[in-house]
Amino acid sequence: MRVAVVGATGMVGQVMLQVLEERRLPVSELIPVATAKSVGREIRFAGKAYTVVSMEDALRAKPDLAFFSAGGGTSLEWAPRFVEAGATVIDNSSAWRMDPSVPLVVPEVNAQALNTADGTAHKLIANPNCSTIQLMVALHPLQEAFGLERVVVSTYQSVTGSGYRAADQLRAEQEGCSPEAKVYPHPIHNNVIPHCDVFEDSGYTKEELKIVRESRKILDLPELRITATAVRVPVTGGHSESVNVQLKRETCVAEIQALLANAPGIKLVDNPANNAYPMPKDAFGIDPVLVGRIRKDESADNAFHLWVVADNLRKGAATNAVDIAAHLPTLSRV
Amino acid sequence: MRVAVVGATGMVGQVMLQVLEERRLPVSELIPVATAKSVGREIRFAGKAYTVVSMEDALRAKPDLAFFSAGGGTSLEWAPRFVEAGATVIDNSSAWRMDPSVPLVVPEVNAQALNTADGTAHKLIANPNCSTIQLMVALHPLQEAFGLERVVVSTYQSVTGSGYRAADQLRAEQEGCSPEAKVYPHPIHNNVIPHCDVFEDSGYTKEELKIVRESRKILDLPELRITATAVRVPVTGGHSESVNVQLKRETCVAEIQALLANAPGIKLVDNPANNAYPMPKDAFGIDPVLVGRIRKDESADNAFHLWVVADNLRKGAATNAVDIAAHLPTLSRV
Repeated sequence: MRVAVVGATGMVGQVMLQVLEERRLPVSELIPVATAKSVGREIRFAGKAYTVVSMEDALRAKPDLAFFSAGGGTSLEWAPRFVEAGATVIDNSSAWRMDPSVPLVVPEVNAQALNTADGTAHKLIANPNCSTIQLMVALHPLQEAFGLERVVVSTYQSVTGSGYRAADQLRAEQEGCSPEAKVYPHPIHNNVIPHCDVFEDSGYTKEELKIVRESRKILDLPELRITATAVRVPVTGGHSESVNVQLKRETCVAEIQALLANAPGIKLVDNPANNAYPMPKDAFGIDPVLVGRIRKDESADNAFHLWVVADNLRKGAATNAVDIAAHLPTLSRV
Repeated sequence: MRVAVVGATGMVGQVMLQVLEERRLPVSELIPVATAKSVGREIRFAGKAYTVVSMEDALRAKPDLAFFSAGGGTSLEWAPRFVEAGATVIDNSSAWRMDPSVPLVVPEVNAQALNTADGTAHKLIANPNCSTIQLMVALHPLQEAFGLERVVVSTYQSVTGSGYRAADQLRAEQEGCSPEAKVYPHPIHNNVIPHCDVFEDSGYTKEELKIVRESRKILDLPELRITATAVRVPVTGGHSESVNVQLKRETCVAEIQALLANAPGIKLVDNPANNAYPMPKDAFGIDPVLVGRIRKDESADNAFHLWVVADNLRKGAATNAVDIAAHLPTLSRV
């Protein structure tokens, strides 16, 4: 299988290559794609060297599968052309996520959405937003078992969600230097910025609305009562989420713990007596979504708190995209 | 007025001295108190030098007013003895907060609690927890105007809430050194720790339950539906809070903004179009509680989001204590 990785030199692209290697997907040829200034650069993958090519060259190479992690504009323009050339595209940008004809997939939750109504496979698949993916992995088992009544999320998001330059900004500020590029409109070192992605007229940021809209689509609950506050913190290891969930049916902490401990993609870390709870430093570099601090919230009926942490570059981006590929009927046939 | 500051060399004590100077309280004599290893040290206050004394010596000096910021054990043992010796004690520890005979005061909210039923003044007054104070300043106007139906809080707390050694731990970790003392059970640099204060059997931390219990007492709403998740972030400037509030009566964002813009102790910072919202870096060193990111939450009736930030050492501790002193009938008479 010829696999293109568009945005191969970016933060998500690099983790993508790493996950592709680890998962031993049947990649016969890698086609790393990046912008003009990286074309010609050499990239190592599975013990072989590959040269970064342009979008046009990648298209001409007719990949079977293409992962896009190069921003919404690139995906909007190029994903349909790759599909036309015969590729299945898994797009990590927000460009296609809310398109009703494009499935938005977290394999643990809605792998069935990969197939069209007439049984053929979708050729363009959207990978959800990082904050949404980890939330879905944690909430889906609860929806299945007890039904979701209302969800209130506050995030603690890693700077790696904004790419290399944001991580550079944090590092420069930590070292007391002036950052080369200011990705955030304010210092992020020693600060908390309640502003991820751009603001819409409603006063919500796009990041907050992605959590709301994408969750509804992935869970196939168009009326789900869900709201979010998205916040950037000076952290690189992963995104944390404080999740308050009201369920439709009665349950208890022990039952939720047992359910989530056995749910796909989740590692339960919930032993406060031993200071064991999910943290970005422990989520970094691994695939499971860590869930802990599960508590009964007495302020509403059937309400509970969860604390959900994941590496936003792995399960929040690269791993989920590769997981989607692993579920493709085309790939299963290989 | 002779004023004792117990815990004068600690983080809160130092800010206390600063705020006392700024506010020009009629301090005729300062009595700085600290543990044995600091006794004899010199402290400058309002242009004069004072020598740190022991608890026993401070008691013998018969202060009119004593601020305690030296931990619950010290307050439990010594506050009653200072009261007996004629002092009014304003205690910043958690020792007396939930005692029904001790008023728990945020002056903007419940200054009236400083007087007893028979019209005499209380001699032992508790200063609330830092996370609670800023929340109360923001929520009280909403309670007065619309009634509080339910409150869900997630905090982003500064390491300064755990004293000098915690700030040292963060600094050492940032510089790649091994911290002298590990105040937190995990690294805090580049990490988020969902664990402030110790765990109770319910799975909640004491910090979370302080927010719940103290809020109910201060607002005099013993049945208030309120819940919290308290989280430590690698920040020193102040505490941030993501607050989801359901009100009893209908209102709109503009009305809440107008209300809070004119509420005591609040500075409204709510202009997302100009990237203006509350942040710890801006709250640091000032007294107002910053409130912004006010949004309608469509997931429940009359629900709204607020983002609330304050310097936890000033309004969250020292400033509130000094504000209490300024409201004392005894002091007003001076």
